[in-house]
Amino acid sequence: MSKSQLPVIPLEACHPAPYVREPLSVDAAVELATVFKALSDPVRLRLLSSIASRAGQEACVCDLSEGIDLTQPTISHHLKVLRSAGLLTSERRASWVYYRVVPQALQRVSDALLLESGETAAATA
Amino acid sequence: MSKSQLPVIPLEACHPAPYVREPLSVDAAVELATVFKALSDPVRLRLLSSIASRAGQEACVCDLSEGIDLTQPTISHHLKVLRSAGLLTSERRASWVYYRVVPQALQRVSDALLLESGETAAATA
Repeated sequence: MSKSQLPVIPLEACHPAPYVREPLSVDAAVELATVFKALSDPVRLRLLSSIASRAGQEACVCDLSEGIDLTQPTISHHLKVLRSAGLLTSERRASWVYYRVVPQALQRVSDALLLESGETAAATA
Repeated sequence: MSKSQLPVIPLEACHPAPYVREPLSVDAAVELATVFKALSDPVRLRLLSSIASRAGQEACVCDLSEGIDLTQPTISHHLKVLRSAGLLTSERRASWVYYRVVPQALQRVSDALLLESGETAAATA
């Protein structure tokens, strides 16, 4: 059998699965990644949780070093990152700065993950 | 009035807000931060969303570079990070590797955020 007679076996084709919905846009991915970056540090997660676990979801900066073996400037830096990502707000009252959770921001991120999991985002979105 | 007669004005005290529930433990924060780190990159979010948006929440690696201006090895690296964080599983079928979303992993992270937002985690947890 000459070369020209060899059967042509096509490479196994890739079978793309069709989209059933629109995936995240570039802009939405960049925005969401910023929030996840703020949440990607264990100390920041503990600070956020420490605030979220208190009455009124609010805590004084003077009360947030409990159980966290870091200097006050380092803790303040982490709180600033969470605030920049829109997860916390802060307010100065007399000598102290108080931090408060932004539940809507956490809800939005939670909904985005739920959407990717195939569940419908919560009706509260 | 002598110095000894000056009134003593105490420093304004910090008023710690009481905990209404237990905050995240150190171990839980470390584990959760690992997943958020995997999600903190826009390209990884788009890859995850591209897989999650398809029928069966599954996609062939050969079909994931569409619209993403990166080399195949870089895309494979990002997919590996998502898989290591437990957000994707992979399976080789003949010549191609297929990636599938792990909805339970996304649901767990979504629930953790919802808890911090002050909402009760979804009943599906």
